Amino acid sequence: MASTQNLKEATGNHSSWESLLPDFPKGPLCKYRKKASFNWKEMAVLLDGKDIIQFKNKIFSALESDPLFAHHPGEDLSREKYQELTFLRCKRLFEYDFLTQQEIAENPLKIFHMVLCIGMYDWSPCIQYMLHCGAFGGTLLSASGRFADIMEQIYGMKIFGCFALTELSHGTNTKGIRTTATFDHNTQEFIINTPDFEAAKFWVGNMGKHATHAVVYAQLYTPDGQYQGLHSFLVQIRDTKTLLPIPGVMVGDIGKKLGQNGLDNGFAMFHNVRIPKENILNIAGDVTAEGKYSSSVKDVKERFSAALGSLSSGRIAITAVSMTNLKLALSIAIRFSAVRRQFGPTDDEEIPVLEYQTQADLGREIHALSAASKPLTSWTAQQAAQECREACGGHGYLAMNRLGEIRNDNDPNCTYEGDNNVLLQQTSNYLMSWMDCIRDKVPFESPFGTINVLQDYHDILGWKFTPISVEDCMDSSVPLAAYKWLVCYLLRESDLKLSKEKQSGRSDFEAKNNCQVYYCRSLAIAFIEQTVLQRYHDYTHDPNIPSTLQPVLKNLSALYGLWSLSKHLAVLYQGGYASGEQAGRFIQNAILELCYRLKDDAVALVDVFAPPDFILNSPIGKANGELYKNMWGEILQGSKALNRPSWWAEFCINRPVKGRLRSKL
Amino acid sequence: MASTQNLKEATGNHSSWESLLPDFPKGPLCKYRKKASFNWKEMAVLLDGKDIIQFKNKIFSALESDPLFAHHPGEDLSREKYQELTFLRCKRLFEYDFLTQQEIAENPLKIFHMVLCIGMYDWSPCIQYMLHCGAFGGTLLSASGRFADIMEQIYGMKIFGCFALTELSHGTNTKGIRTTATFDHNTQEFIINTPDFEAAKFWVGNMGKHATHAVVYAQLYTPDGQYQGLHSFLVQIRDTKTLLPIPGVMVGDIGKKLGQNGLDNGFAMFHNVRIPKENILNIAGDVTAEGKYSSSVKDVKERFSAALGSLSSGRIAITAVSMTNLKLALSIAIRFSAVRRQFGPTDDEEIPVLEYQTQADLGREIHALSAASKPLTSWTAQQAAQECREACGGHGYLAMNRLGEIRNDNDPNCTYEGDNNVLLQQTSNYLMSWMDCIRDKVPFESPFGTINVLQDYHDILGWKFTPISVEDCMDSSVPLAAYKWLVCYLLRESDLKLSKEKQSGRSDFEAKNNCQVYYCRSLAIAFIEQTVLQRYHDYTHDPNIPSTLQPVLKNLSALYGLWSLSKHLAVLYQGGYASGEQAGRFIQNAILELCYRLKDDAVALVDVFAPPDFILNSPIGKANGELYKNMWGEILQGSKALNRPSWWAEFCINRPVKGRLRSKL
Repeated sequence: MASTQNLKEATGNHSSWESLLPDFPKGPLCKYRKKASFNWKEMAVLLDGKDIIQFKNKIFSALESDPLFAHHPGEDLSREKYQELTFLRCKRLFEYDFLTQQEIAENPLKIFHMVLCIGMYDWSPCIQYMLHCGAFGGTLLSASGRFADIMEQIYGMKIFGCFALTELSHGTNTKGIRTTATFDHNTQEFIINTPDFEAAKFWVGNMGKHATHAVVYAQLYTPDGQYQGLHSFLVQIRDTKTLLPIPGVMVGDIGKKLGQNGLDNGFAMFHNVRIPKENILNIAGDVTAEGKYSSSVKDVKERFSAALGSLSSGRIAITAVSMTNLKLALSIAIRFSAVRRQFGPTDDEEIPVLEYQTQADLGREIHALSAASKPLTSWTAQQAAQECREACGGHGYLAMNRLGEIRNDNDPNCTYEGDNNVLLQQTSNYLMSWMDCIRDKVPFESPFGTINVLQDYHDILGWKFTPISVEDCMDSSVPLAAYKWLVCYLLRESDLKLSKEKQSGRSDFEAKNNCQVYYCRSLAIAFIEQTVLQRYHDYTHDPNIPSTLQPVLKNLSALYGLWSLSKHLAVLYQGGYASGEQAGRFIQNAILELCYRLKDDAVALVDVFAPPDFILNSPIGKANGELYKNMWGEILQGSKALNRPSWWAEFCINRPVKGRLRSKL
Repeated sequence: MASTQNLKEATGNHSSWESLLPDFPKGPLCKYRKKASFNWKEMAVLLDGKDIIQFKNKIFSALESDPLFAHHPGEDLSREKYQELTFLRCKRLFEYDFLTQQEIAENPLKIFHMVLCIGMYDWSPCIQYMLHCGAFGGTLLSASGRFADIMEQIYGMKIFGCFALTELSHGTNTKGIRTTATFDHNTQEFIINTPDFEAAKFWVGNMGKHATHAVVYAQLYTPDGQYQGLHSFLVQIRDTKTLLPIPGVMVGDIGKKLGQNGLDNGFAMFHNVRIPKENILNIAGDVTAEGKYSSSVKDVKERFSAALGSLSSGRIAITAVSMTNLKLALSIAIRFSAVRRQFGPTDDEEIPVLEYQTQADLGREIHALSAASKPLTSWTAQQAAQECREACGGHGYLAMNRLGEIRNDNDPNCTYEGDNNVLLQQTSNYLMSWMDCIRDKVPFESPFGTINVLQDYHDILGWKFTPISVEDCMDSSVPLAAYKWLVCYLLRESDLKLSKEKQSGRSDFEAKNNCQVYYCRSLAIAFIEQTVLQRYHDYTHDPNIPSTLQPVLKNLSALYGLWSLSKHLAVLYQGGYASGEQAGRFIQNAILELCYRLKDDAVALVDVFAPPDFILNSPIGKANGELYKNMWGEILQGSKALNRPSWWAEFCINRPVKGRLRSKL
């Protein structure tokens, strides 16, 4: 969302919206668009700002006019062909060079917009590009000035990189990594080894077919046999002139996945692969020419954290990716449903994207927020994609309409960069770390202020649900108050449960483990939902929001809050915040009433965030709403849609002899 | 489940289990198998009986020994090739002829077992076979003796059939069908016409490439121009000697789907296609040689129902299909998790499959049960497949491990044979139809007795949650009592809401529509869950169940009941059945305790229902538990897993010129 300070300026000029955002073609959706309570163009300008809309238009047009990005309806692309096409498209992104270093410096958020625009087209080339520039290049950049030459080759795509952390038998638990790097001071080299196939690097994006270099995580041993902890190394794995593997490296593709099949995920085993001393990424520590280890970080555990660096940025990126998938799925399902039948919308809401900084308190809070926003958004998008699929019935199950691709491509967001359930533990750990301050009534606050609500913990626990009618519940302040109570209550319950578990003699690990379901996990989810709702509530109630847009935004805010809250209704009753039949009924009836009020705005809301038809690439989701015409046209494009099968003789001539094989049973 | 009357006999002979069910290979799962509280072979014999186990073994062995059914790990099968293979496999099923007419007569349930065994291997050939024999053949069989000759050709696969009901713009709403059949008494023929492309038959399984004949639903017009309602007709669409379309028929394949891509779903448009008079399926009515319409059913609405016949059998089949998908997903995820890390199981529970009979009350009850069991099981399987995918982390996202295929193939179960949400309305309508009897305190009961619980409606509404400890909640009688209250409460609430809507002047349609969310929909779900739990509770508490198996079965019953109930906890509080913090805590802690108790039985429970490795076809789900070895072996089988990409020169020679295209933006 654009800052509200520039709102007047941003949305002030009516005529300029027109050139930025052309009208949609006439068709069956017109009558729904006319019903909308607001102007979708004004909303789009409010949310993104003109500069970003222009930037997005530029990217969308470039892809649409480039034959390399043409869609091939009805073609059955093999995985190999799709990998080739993905690589060519990734290469083309370097030729477009949508953002110069100077443009990035002026507005770093543009990187996100660029990535999401390309991802809306297809996640495979987008992720391939980001893994090379971000996960590979960014990690080298953060190491030291040592890799300046390499950076030049990365940006010119003279080498192609990947980020090799996980192994076949160790994913989330990165401490269990078993690849080794042993320093040989005679040759001033590190020797990289994979002890056995279970320690093969595995799942590494870009490694399957293309990467020439990898950032490889390995356990470091100095010549004195001393273990120095996890470190990362730049290792060449393929020849840049031939793409053949470097001797000692066995590298390949891990095979077909449920989605993102344009991307080549790979594996690699290292057999005494030697790399120069300079190739250690000296973030956590370094080795002298004599083979002595030196590090500014004394503690091995801390060194481990330093070596891994920040994974928060990855999680924030996935949060944005999941939101984008939600937008795509909703664009298709709501346009379909407006023509096929009436359909109440769910909410769209965007979490501002934050940039990583190193200051410790800020880092902890960002970590806690990103560790919970990734699960919230990836699960929401995954469930919404499935619901959109079902809402579109059989036609939603046709591959051409893209809801399956969206769901299947979104799916890994629940797993990579940290399993969702594991991440939620980190958020609840952070929240529970404030219990001492709360108990001792010591003043506290966090850099972003997201935990400041806990300052009033004791007071909030005494709050009750007060609305006495459905109308009373129609503002997001109602679910917001309930959420504040919910977070405090779940924090108290989680803390009590943990003390109990510890008192009964359980180990720290076991005690924490037994507190997850119904306690810490719910706490982390409630906390991130409350945080999102607070920001959204503040935004929609800002007096600078144009009065033409405020009603629909406030309705969305209330609906999002109440709908999220309704999943915690049992806890509200259980903990005594709500009582009696009316409380639940008010909430449920307010949700139904808000759905009713937003029904006529659904199509226009989708118009705000839907990408152009070429990018959305879904016959039932096209802006003209001519869903049957769009589908029929595409079906007849299908290669061999009307052909007799090549195996026709298997029916017409080689008929089965009934029971011929029964004697063999 | 086998009848409990024969239990002693069925599980009595220990030595015979061994030959029926060989031991699993030794490996990492052994230690979990030793921990189990029961003998998995005894359980398997209890659930299926020896005869069925032998029958299943026969089918599994036949598929495993037949090269046509060989898996091709790492091969990237094109959709066309997959369709061909599916057709050849379907043909092969005729040659095996697993069940003779006599065997079916002796035990008709064997058809279900056969279908599910083949489906466990792959749903595409299974559904192709069932659409031909069941949906096409079964419909003709039910029409009259007129199609006896045709039946012979169907069972010998001399013709190949499909069931053409839905159209491009009309799925669930079959009343909107627009294909017409006009009788020409000069030639004694019906003329079949498709008015425009939106009325093309669409989504029809087997129609895309193979079907030579279709049962086509069309609106019947007699020569006097009179409209006679929806009827079905046998229409030839392709030549049986060439598989080329019959003149006047435009028929083709609708393209790639999210799953079940071996099956050829198709479309067809008819342009003055003439069929003989005898080809009308005279279920609802018939036409005389003079072109007069005659029907034993006077009302057009009733005739419509008669023409459609029973769709209950399809829904019951989907219930069984969904349960099978749940078994497959759990087999993979639990074996993976036992080796990869500890994992608490969810419940497995099988709904007895019922056969359709025509008696009216029985028919209504079966309809109400099948209309709710399909949504319950298809959604449970869909969500469980996704959770199993996530529980297996990245490896669950690899296609070879099959969780994606299970999820994607299960997905249409939520849609076809009636959209889940639409079906639930039919169940709640049935339940609400008893309100007059309840209000008037007139005695009533239903043939299966599933609504007899409503006899005590007034009494049950006064019940309260009474357990005073976690231990008190460990039996399924606790959630069962809560469910009885829940069904009565939701029935009362739905009835009240409907009266209110009607009183405020809304039309019947609108009033019913406004009562779905939070009321009628919840009622239908609670009712089917209560029915399932009641049967499962009775089964597990039957004194004839061997004492060696009863503890684990009772634990599963309690866990299933409490876990399902926990989703309704808010309503229990809202309606005053539960109050205070303890009630919810008892339920939650009982769930956690039961998961803990069942943890060591999870692998053995999966051993009971998992098909052989060849059928399960998942490296991480194999019975030996050697998950990394199994995966590694399969990855290296991948075609070109280690090859340099054929497009290597696109990187090595044709390097991108950074920003070359920037000027074109």
